[in-house]
Amino acid sequence: MASIKPSVPKGTRDFSPTEMVRRNFIFDTIKSVFRKYGYQQIETPTMENLSTLTGKYGDEGDKLIFKVLNSGDFWDSAQSKKVKDENFEYNSKSLTPLISEKALRYDLTVPFARYVVQHQNEITFPFKRFQVQPVWRADRPQKGRYREFYQCDADVVGSDSLLNEAEFILIYDEALSKLGLKDFTIKINNRKILSGIAEIIDKADNIIDLTVAIDKLDKIGLDGVIKELLERGFTEADIEKIKPVILLEGTNAGKLESLRNALANSITGLKGCDEIETVFNYIANCQLQTANLELDITLARGLNYYTGAIFEVKTNEVAMGSIGGGGRYDDLTGMFGLKGLTGVGISFGADRIYDVLEELNLFPATSNQSTQLLICCFDKEGEAFAFPILQLLRKQDLNTELYPAGAKLKKQLDYANSKNIPFTIIIGSEEMESGLLTLKNMETGVQDKLTVEQIIVELVSKAV
Amino acid sequence: MASIKPSVPKGTRDFSPTEMVRRNFIFDTIKSVFRKYGYQQIETPTMENLSTLTGKYGDEGDKLIFKVLNSGDFWDSAQSKKVKDENFEYNSKSLTPLISEKALRYDLTVPFARYVVQHQNEITFPFKRFQVQPVWRADRPQKGRYREFYQCDADVVGSDSLLNEAEFILIYDEALSKLGLKDFTIKINNRKILSGIAEIIDKADNIIDLTVAIDKLDKIGLDGVIKELLERGFTEADIEKIKPVILLEGTNAGKLESLRNALANSITGLKGCDEIETVFNYIANCQLQTANLELDITLARGLNYYTGAIFEVKTNEVAMGSIGGGGRYDDLTGMFGLKGLTGVGISFGADRIYDVLEELNLFPATSNQSTQLLICCFDKEGEAFAFPILQLLRKQDLNTELYPAGAKLKKQLDYANSKNIPFTIIIGSEEMESGLLTLKNMETGVQDKLTVEQIIVELVSKAV
Repeated sequence: MASIKPSVPKGTRDFSPTEMVRRNFIFDTIKSVFRKYGYQQIETPTMENLSTLTGKYGDEGDKLIFKVLNSGDFWDSAQSKKVKDENFEYNSKSLTPLISEKALRYDLTVPFARYVVQHQNEITFPFKRFQVQPVWRADRPQKGRYREFYQCDADVVGSDSLLNEAEFILIYDEALSKLGLKDFTIKINNRKILSGIAEIIDKADNIIDLTVAIDKLDKIGLDGVIKELLERGFTEADIEKIKPVILLEGTNAGKLESLRNALANSITGLKGCDEIETVFNYIANCQLQTANLELDITLARGLNYYTGAIFEVKTNEVAMGSIGGGGRYDDLTGMFGLKGLTGVGISFGADRIYDVLEELNLFPATSNQSTQLLICCFDKEGEAFAFPILQLLRKQDLNTELYPAGAKLKKQLDYANSKNIPFTIIIGSEEMESGLLTLKNMETGVQDKLTVEQIIVELVSKAV
Repeated sequence: MASIKPSVPKGTRDFSPTEMVRRNFIFDTIKSVFRKYGYQQIETPTMENLSTLTGKYGDEGDKLIFKVLNSGDFWDSAQSKKVKDENFEYNSKSLTPLISEKALRYDLTVPFARYVVQHQNEITFPFKRFQVQPVWRADRPQKGRYREFYQCDADVVGSDSLLNEAEFILIYDEALSKLGLKDFTIKINNRKILSGIAEIIDKADNIIDLTVAIDKLDKIGLDGVIKELLERGFTEADIEKIKPVILLEGTNAGKLESLRNALANSITGLKGCDEIETVFNYIANCQLQTANLELDITLARGLNYYTGAIFEVKTNEVAMGSIGGGGRYDDLTGMFGLKGLTGVGISFGADRIYDVLEELNLFPATSNQSTQLLICCFDKEGEAFAFPILQLLRKQDLNTELYPAGAKLKKQLDYANSKNIPFTIIIGSEEMESGLLTLKNMETGVQDKLTVEQIIVELVSKAV
């Protein structure tokens, strides 16, 4: 067998014990908040039928889907289908459907739509589901972009109530506050407001051009946006009309008032304002823990998809792209033949949140997912003495290990340090005689002689 | 777009909210016990390099590995490698390495071995790791056998102490007891005892034939085993010699004593007896919660692989194959060039455990993973009244939902029942006036008029 040093495919990662504790902290926090708001977890298979995924992500997306080679004698089976045709042209595109009928999940949204349609008779609507699973994309790997990464999505389908939009704001606020973020902004916009802006300059058909340009205000500034609007066929008069709108500043209430004036002639635009106001009214009725909530009419993410609210979340503590986003879509399940089911959903960017927490040093120093105590002994006699004590400590739900007899103390303490174990008990001949064990705090180095009962009291009080 | 009813690939499954709560109950219980015993979680990528997996599972296994089609223009790229060679013979075997260089994880053991070798300089040994992830096999799907299923493995590498074997028995005992099983048996054997049995009849080279036959004692009875032994070239005299051994009954101590007599001439066999006895001595030092621990010298699972202890777990409450198994292997990482690292590990069969708990009705009726309370209201006024109450309840970490205004009470209560929500609060005009809300126990139908504070006290005390 080969003995070259093994590796993982590019763009994929192993997660070490330390990374797993941190990732679980993020996922468990987000999941607990989803559950608190009544969202239920589902999981879908890693592989979907290729036909379920193809055509849902555009031509570029289709290319980035990982296809799975048919099992068995795929070539013989392809022959019997088509390849033996003399005029068959061999190329990747023509061969793919003959040798592959399954593919790896590319996002959680399309499998969710497939799930809803497939199980529609078992589901009680409104259906509030969350899903935390990896997805795969054959993107070129680069810093912060992976070929395998987790998505954390929550969606509700079958309810057009704006209560749902308000609750997603609370979910973002609560989850990110629990993760320790101190300053972040939830931006909200509404597709109908964007439509209204296009309408008041009689360019309803050019809404994509309009939003692609104004979406860049952050990056290229007003002059850049104007230049781009002119290039995309908007007139100076158009720009004069929409300039005050895209430059709106001040409070959310002030912005809304100005928008109502500017969009007075657009029924759709006013509807968008009403929807935003309804969401704000829900939120006014309770206290956000940390989040700034900001109406940002330049926000357009995935415009073709969203039909109502649009969300995006940014941390203000670290330079980083959005750490969350979502919105309302009126026809999620139409692609699988179930029309008219409205939905709204959000997503957390777990990998980016990981980077933010790491940069801000916000990961908890200790975790109930790690070992809290290591018992060190030196010979078989010590091990026999320690073994029942080990079980006593575990009965108290303390994560406890006994180092197998025979190693030097230094090696055992190094082991404790490498696993970040906060306490050790040292059992030598003296301890066995007196029944007083040495409890060592690995951080401070302080040692105490205590009975097993005293150690239990001490550690249970300190357990996370 | 197509509107044929969508489905998942055969052998794969969607997991509904109810199934997820139950699966999480199993996984969370097992994980918490792994952690209590000092095992740390890792995760490895879904895709491994095909070369990492090939040749590790035998020829049959290789065929069952799902291969991933190279992304980009795989055919063009294959052409430039070899296919344009005039003598190239087109078939699945010759094409596979040209169009696929990645594959889906087939088990957790080989990726773990790859992980240990790849990260050997970051790891402090003994390395106690657990891993709970799905694996994929292109097996023919049948009842209880899937193409995507989870494995739950814990292994320790770099320690030859039999303390580890003893701890795995405690882990099985604690985890399965926590899951609610009342009667199960942990069977233990030792490869060295099997070697000893082969040695005493001078058939050390035929150990596989021997164990394959006696492993079937359960299924085909003594006569069947004798017939098979004769067919496999064992003599009547051999059989007379080993018959008392394979028919051993009585206490573990009694079996061990008889074995020592029978294996008196085999150093290896006696070593196996010593190892088993050491493990039993550890366990004698503490109390098993539920498990029966049984020395079963017919147990041979994966003999080629194991070099010391062999484990298997069976429930005695339901007819079902093994729900766990494992053992010690002396050269896990040799396949990746790191020799001489000993390890021992166990696995839980999550899908079978699920079926057992379902059949025995052992899944908890309620879960803190589900919604505990639904607030029902009837109009926008009720919704506005209810929204701050909703936040109050969530502040107490109660999973709470507010049904969006507008639906009839029956629809809302049906929703609560379909989600198995144990309590509802009903807020009508009377409730808004008096401040006394109607709390309904959905199981008993009992309704009480209570203040919000009283409801909180009531529900917090009942929360799981």
